[in-house]
Amino acid sequence: MYNSVGRDLPEQVAGRTLQPYQGPASFRPTGRRYGPPLKAVFPGESKVLGSLREAITRTGLSDGDTISFHHHLRNGEAVVNMVVSELARLGLKDITLAPTALFPVHEPLIEHVKNGVVTAIHGSLNGPVGAFASPGGVFKEPTVLRSHGGRARALASGDLHVDVAFISAPVADDYGNCNGAFGDSAFGAMGFPAADARYADQVVVVTDNLQPYPVTPASISQTQVDYVVQVDSIGDPQGIKTGTMEITKSPSRLMMAQQVVRLLAEAGIITDGFSFQAGAGGTSLAVTKFLHDYMRQHHITGNFVMGGITGFVVDMLEDGTISTILDAQSFDLRAVESIRRNPRHVEVSHIEFGDPHTGGCVVNRQQACFLGATEVDVDFNVNVNTHSDGMLLHGIGGHQDAAAGSDVTIILVPLLRGRIPVVRDRVTTVSTPGDVVDVIVTDQGIAVNPRRDDLLESLRGSHLNLVDINDLYARATRLCGEPRRPVLGDEVVAVVEYRDGTVLDTVHSVRGW
Amino acid sequence: MYNSVGRDLPEQVAGRTLQPYQGPASFRPTGRRYGPPLKAVFPGESKVLGSLREAITRTGLSDGDTISFHHHLRNGEAVVNMVVSELARLGLKDITLAPTALFPVHEPLIEHVKNGVVTAIHGSLNGPVGAFASPGGVFKEPTVLRSHGGRARALASGDLHVDVAFISAPVADDYGNCNGAFGDSAFGAMGFPAADARYADQVVVVTDNLQPYPVTPASISQTQVDYVVQVDSIGDPQGIKTGTMEITKSPSRLMMAQQVVRLLAEAGIITDGFSFQAGAGGTSLAVTKFLHDYMRQHHITGNFVMGGITGFVVDMLEDGTISTILDAQSFDLRAVESIRRNPRHVEVSHIEFGDPHTGGCVVNRQQACFLGATEVDVDFNVNVNTHSDGMLLHGIGGHQDAAAGSDVTIILVPLLRGRIPVVRDRVTTVSTPGDVVDVIVTDQGIAVNPRRDDLLESLRGSHLNLVDINDLYARATRLCGEPRRPVLGDEVVAVVEYRDGTVLDTVHSVRGW
Repeated sequence: MYNSVGRDLPEQVAGRTLQPYQGPASFRPTGRRYGPPLKAVFPGESKVLGSLREAITRTGLSDGDTISFHHHLRNGEAVVNMVVSELARLGLKDITLAPTALFPVHEPLIEHVKNGVVTAIHGSLNGPVGAFASPGGVFKEPTVLRSHGGRARALASGDLHVDVAFISAPVADDYGNCNGAFGDSAFGAMGFPAADARYADQVVVVTDNLQPYPVTPASISQTQVDYVVQVDSIGDPQGIKTGTMEITKSPSRLMMAQQVVRLLAEAGIITDGFSFQAGAGGTSLAVTKFLHDYMRQHHITGNFVMGGITGFVVDMLEDGTISTILDAQSFDLRAVESIRRNPRHVEVSHIEFGDPHTGGCVVNRQQACFLGATEVDVDFNVNVNTHSDGMLLHGIGGHQDAAAGSDVTIILVPLLRGRIPVVRDRVTTVSTPGDVVDVIVTDQGIAVNPRRDDLLESLRGSHLNLVDINDLYARATRLCGEPRRPVLGDEVVAVVEYRDGTVLDTVHSVRGW
Repeated sequence: MYNSVGRDLPEQVAGRTLQPYQGPASFRPTGRRYGPPLKAVFPGESKVLGSLREAITRTGLSDGDTISFHHHLRNGEAVVNMVVSELARLGLKDITLAPTALFPVHEPLIEHVKNGVVTAIHGSLNGPVGAFASPGGVFKEPTVLRSHGGRARALASGDLHVDVAFISAPVADDYGNCNGAFGDSAFGAMGFPAADARYADQVVVVTDNLQPYPVTPASISQTQVDYVVQVDSIGDPQGIKTGTMEITKSPSRLMMAQQVVRLLAEAGIITDGFSFQAGAGGTSLAVTKFLHDYMRQHHITGNFVMGGITGFVVDMLEDGTISTILDAQSFDLRAVESIRRNPRHVEVSHIEFGDPHTGGCVVNRQQACFLGATEVDVDFNVNVNTHSDGMLLHGIGGHQDAAAGSDVTIILVPLLRGRIPVVRDRVTTVSTPGDVVDVIVTDQGIAVNPRRDDLLESLRGSHLNLVDINDLYARATRLCGEPRRPVLGDEVVAVVEYRDGTVLDTVHSVRGW
């Protein structure tokens, strides 16, 4: 069974019939949103429990259940490991984790996978857990990889059913009102758990900072919360910054970032009302910085920046270059500080950010976004999940959502990484389809998707180094030879969903390289 | 079939099997929340329609469907009449209205009831439409009267199914993000339509003030909105103030208000952290004013006031007497101005305010509330819906919710209104059960519900004029004779639901008085 990006898919995986991807606007959902159980809390009833152990027992968590977490603290996140350790101590088995993402800090999970406490994970596997899963033989069913918007969609549709959501919060009251902006563990916007709070059957708020009722603003409302547990620490906000948040120092990356701004300017896209999605990688930060400079120099005022918000975007808000920040995930402590006090720095959930099966999400209103990749191919397909050796080391994040929504989606990649070609005939894994990718900016030329004749037309006569994507691929192979490919096994270790729930690709077990 | 407040109920009304009320904490819901349809809006698709007529046709509204509205503009509300006129022009019939409340301004609906466009109304009927319905023979099924929290519950459970919600907003963008705080028609907090936006199958935002995307804060999120229609005016914010918002000048009412504060103080309830629900009637405003004076004099700081918010509560926030305002409905223009700029003046929805079938609502955390009544009886039951002549002239509002949630629920009523006794052997209609009513303060004595022996104990030795409720009733009859009762017909014109969906009472057609 082939989908429209040419990937051969099994008809079924782990009892689920796969619906092949057929284009970004070919699938309209039917059916209704998932309805979690009605409940009642009467006056005088307390929600505060003494420990995570008590939360596990009171929610009635059982073998085979699914629990969810968010990763706002990224590599500083501490609650997943605490909860899973407690599950192990209580002798629970066969638990499915549905985190928004896992990070290197979650490496201890591997022990709990080995001992049968955790038997499936549906969510982004960044780093060690992904590396552990890649050879196969690890989980009872493949990991489902979803974009941020796609995960919200899956919760809403019931495709991803969560028995108990654990929502960690740096400030909460005894009724569960909580937000991410205050307290020693503050991480800023709290966009991820909104969907879990709305669709999980039960919700436990875990906090290290219990404050008098009512805590406001309530990113998660008391009406959505069953229990509140206080712990010593939900994690370390310094962990937010892992591996990102420094502007690139590479001259070639800086040049690429400058070319993005020049391309958008030449195409007539940066005008009053311009809105874009900012990223937090080193090159994306440079784009934001250069956009800021350009808009200020040309007295252009933008409507909003959606993020991945950092201090670079806060600067744009504070000097009036943009009117509003929409923030679902704050990426540095300046963003955390800004969302706390600036009413124009507005929290949105990942439902608002990117759930495609709603009345319309924020990404639909973005003029541009700037994204990275591990690989791209001559069909403009993008891989962000696997490395060229087949190892599953990254999640999709908001990549698909931003690409699908934005008028112009720009991928910034070097032509090569060491001796490995980044521009290829065929990506190892299709994470984002070429249907929604418009421009690939490399250090050796810029390729515009031929589908975008409007963009090509508006760039006619440009002195930018516009090239054919096939020429980029030819150059990469001239320099490094044909791309080397991993030796793959039969096992499907992950299913890559498009944000609408159709299937883009599968990730197979890696047997060699 | 008798319920626990002694009302004889039919087993079925209009094909619905009634579940009798059996006490405020006797019913726990089963089942799941209603799931409206999944939908998709792709980039580039517009939601803006040219007219209400186009909204009606594009949503596919058909004979027999249900549409909903909110009443934040109260007697200044203009959208109900506009939409129903358009339904009539389009020849639609047999429409059920599910407004949060109707006001005298909605009297033109009567024509559309007579001509068959509207054949049922589920929502508060204040004034002319209620008077029109009271003799019976008007609607195809009885009106269901619900509290604000009960209505949110009914939407969530699917008991009240809405095909299309019309949400009027004084500011909105072309994607439907909107709030109540800005624009010429600003009415402040926008608590009512949150439940409609979440559970209606389709949502139309009607605005007279379309602003650039993104409008923030988004009380209603773009993800919940299908269409946006711009009209000349959604109504007149001066209409918010109808019949309320002036502090009483009556010496006996002022004395009652003072006694409320004295009672709470003597019972040891007004201490740091004190939180209460404010009302907007003339006597309730006096209570708020006197509480403010008392707390300031005694250097007591409260946690929150839930409202019905007026300038009197804003004063408490601004001088630090309370820490937070939770506002679901603003009752004067000072409240509107405050919610616009003060981050401690926080909007909450009526789901948060009072939906009993959630993880716990705000009313559960109130120490006290002060409410009015048309009648009370010796069992502490309260009538707010009908007059003693049986006429259905008022909605339940937040009455049941506040009473059920608050530690101490105080009803303020005169013993008599003219020659009509207010304290009776049996209220004409049970709107709020005596189970959740603690104190009745009259101009001729204060009756504490004997169920509250804790309160009676804490008031032992008080010089307040504490009396037996039966003595108040005896005094009323001594002065006016036995209460006169209306002559009622067989037709059930309204069903009075308790907030949990069980049935407190029915309102019968009035044949004479």
